[in-house]
Amino acid sequence: MFRKLLTLDQAKQVIEQHFSAEPLGVEEIPLLEAYDRVLAQNVTAALDIPPFNRSTVDGYAVKAEDTFGAEENKPVKLKVCGVVNAGEAPRIILTHGTATEIVTGASLPEGADSVVMLEDTDQKDCDIHVQSPVTRDENVMKAGADMRKGETVLEKGQLLSSREIGVLAAVGLARVRVYTLPRVAVLSTGAEIIEPGKKLPPAKVYDINAYSLSAAVQESGGKPIYLGVFPDNVAKMQRILKKALASADVVVTSGGVSVGPKDIMPKTLGSLGKPGVIVCGIAIKPGKPATVASIGGKLVFSLPGHPASALLVFHLLARPVIQRMAGRKTNSVLEVKAFAATRMFPAKGRRTFITVKLKHEKSGRLIAEPVPTGLSGAITTLAKADGFVEIPENQQFVDEDDEVVVQLFKIYLP
Amino acid sequence: MFRKLLTLDQAKQVIEQHFSAEPLGVEEIPLLEAYDRVLAQNVTAALDIPPFNRSTVDGYAVKAEDTFGAEENKPVKLKVCGVVNAGEAPRIILTHGTATEIVTGASLPEGADSVVMLEDTDQKDCDIHVQSPVTRDENVMKAGADMRKGETVLEKGQLLSSREIGVLAAVGLARVRVYTLPRVAVLSTGAEIIEPGKKLPPAKVYDINAYSLSAAVQESGGKPIYLGVFPDNVAKMQRILKKALASADVVVTSGGVSVGPKDIMPKTLGSLGKPGVIVCGIAIKPGKPATVASIGGKLVFSLPGHPASALLVFHLLARPVIQRMAGRKTNSVLEVKAFAATRMFPAKGRRTFITVKLKHEKSGRLIAEPVPTGLSGAITTLAKADGFVEIPENQQFVDEDDEVVVQLFKIYLP
Repeated sequence: MFRKLLTLDQAKQVIEQHFSAEPLGVEEIPLLEAYDRVLAQNVTAALDIPPFNRSTVDGYAVKAEDTFGAEENKPVKLKVCGVVNAGEAPRIILTHGTATEIVTGASLPEGADSVVMLEDTDQKDCDIHVQSPVTRDENVMKAGADMRKGETVLEKGQLLSSREIGVLAAVGLARVRVYTLPRVAVLSTGAEIIEPGKKLPPAKVYDINAYSLSAAVQESGGKPIYLGVFPDNVAKMQRILKKALASADVVVTSGGVSVGPKDIMPKTLGSLGKPGVIVCGIAIKPGKPATVASIGGKLVFSLPGHPASALLVFHLLARPVIQRMAGRKTNSVLEVKAFAATRMFPAKGRRTFITVKLKHEKSGRLIAEPVPTGLSGAITTLAKADGFVEIPENQQFVDEDDEVVVQLFKIYLP
Repeated sequence: MFRKLLTLDQAKQVIEQHFSAEPLGVEEIPLLEAYDRVLAQNVTAALDIPPFNRSTVDGYAVKAEDTFGAEENKPVKLKVCGVVNAGEAPRIILTHGTATEIVTGASLPEGADSVVMLEDTDQKDCDIHVQSPVTRDENVMKAGADMRKGETVLEKGQLLSSREIGVLAAVGLARVRVYTLPRVAVLSTGAEIIEPGKKLPPAKVYDINAYSLSAAVQESGGKPIYLGVFPDNVAKMQRILKKALASADVVVTSGGVSVGPKDIMPKTLGSLGKPGVIVCGIAIKPGKPATVASIGGKLVFSLPGHPASALLVFHLLARPVIQRMAGRKTNSVLEVKAFAATRMFPAKGRRTFITVKLKHEKSGRLIAEPVPTGLSGAITTLAKADGFVEIPENQQFVDEDDEVVVQLFKIYLP
């Protein structure tokens, strides 16, 4: 059986031609549940924040010019007229020669333009002695200093961390519109695969991929729908894929994509609707048999059965699609530069990904040491590595001591 | 009112003397829900993974030495005896001069030590012609190659990403023991503060901190319990803090920690049990009024009311405690080196944190430009900044063009 392999870039182009990865919908949720979600609306301030001139200290609201020239030995005397507590609308209008007691967070009374700190005054009956001058606006957060009414304070597409959630609370939003999470159905195929938790019969192995890929979906900002393990049977696989396509936005399978008699995925995918299989093998190592189908406007990523290959191809092809469907940015790969510990060879004519461990030499130099995955089935090596080095199709090798860019797992297949 | 300020390091020491931040408990959860949780058990492989010698390709299981000398023009002929499918225990014992058809993932029959790829053979009736030799173990993943029976494959304290979840599935675990999430009660105080979503009366502002800090608790690996906004009233605050201490593992409040008449937190905290307030002001800027109490073996972090100060002090003091209680590592701050865009001055005698925005100059040089928070109350500046520069107590200033370390928000207050 012969397949024309696409290059990685061609495969990505073909996927983009068939599927426009965009957020699918919007939902309104409580702000308290919005951490790590993606904002689906531009947020403008409906009012100035703060809405009024606000004291940032405990002390006395004054007219700054009344304090000019004040010194410790030559204090300025002001008459205290009333007090403004936090949360109280001030009813006083401040005039020259007077001061109003004020607490942190309270609104400055009309006529006041600055606040003298408690520490810089001496209280004497109904007067204060100001020992140090203030300038206009000193110890005041002016109305609109944080946000101006009508100003766009956060934009659509913003991932919400503690800081942005603070901004949303500041403008008074208790609920917020975010993109819905793309639902991603995940299943494994293979007659030798059984689900963890069951007793292991001879010649069987536990399923890894439906679990690691479900977690990888979460890492990408999607919501995994775990479907389980299914045998190499075309009719059964057609049924389960139809169900998966009906209930999910994206489908990710693993196994059954090679060229053997039991590799039913390409055939099954071809039978479910147009255009069917759009990528059938990619010139990469590992991951060559990776297959992608477009069925009824939805994508099915059929990844190799080897766990490390499955995760790598997921990262290369499925992750950016899911990220964009979740409204997330796709450029969040963390990279470091290091020196190759040994010469590394790519597979002939295939974009090659070499798993490496990072080590600091005594000199402080960071080196990247290939981890002998040997067999792309080994999941422990992947768990022990720090990242990988990507070698282009047309490069002969990376030499010992060459500088390489290591794409780190911690963010990338975090 | 006079307070002796502790240095930041002293404050951390005092907290450590009073509270040993360790995971509080363990729970068993489905592996499918274990993403981003922390493993609470050492996991050993109960069996070899894979449990048998496994073919990594479709082809023919052979004795490698039978193929020695095979060439395209001088193929070696072997008699095909049977087939091993994936998931089938092989019943054949392979002898010299024979080969067994085998698919990817299937168990090698006894007597076979390697697999010839389908592509390297010609099938003729009951024979195959092998056109290229294989070496012993070629195209075979040997029993135990990924994990050896009894080997510790993951250790207690491991944060679970897609890769580690794959390892746990591989050893057959459908459920896994993880540390329970520390419950962190979060509340705001202040007469001028009201909850977002309500209509804003004059002289009031929306609460920011209970929202931003609840998200910061999630960023630290804890489970926030949002309690809301409470007025500056000692008796009411005593009641709510008692409730919070009874239902949560840690309590985080904001506001009411300065030295004004409405700053009820130190007094309230002092009334609830021994030893009470253990940190009462820290020589940092921003964040000076930060207060910490230890009550009945639990910590209360009372942060300043200014939103940016509250988040910063949370990061400096509360975050590492919550991370350790969650079983997480505390050293996950992401740093970059940059050049100071301007001279930066610390506050006299206080460890100073200056919020900065990173910019690439045309030359490619990365520069750190202070963001004029001006007033530590501004939450938008914090949301627009990339990180901060920390200036030690004893340093006079950071000069323009000096190299500085920028601690990034994206990981740190992610």
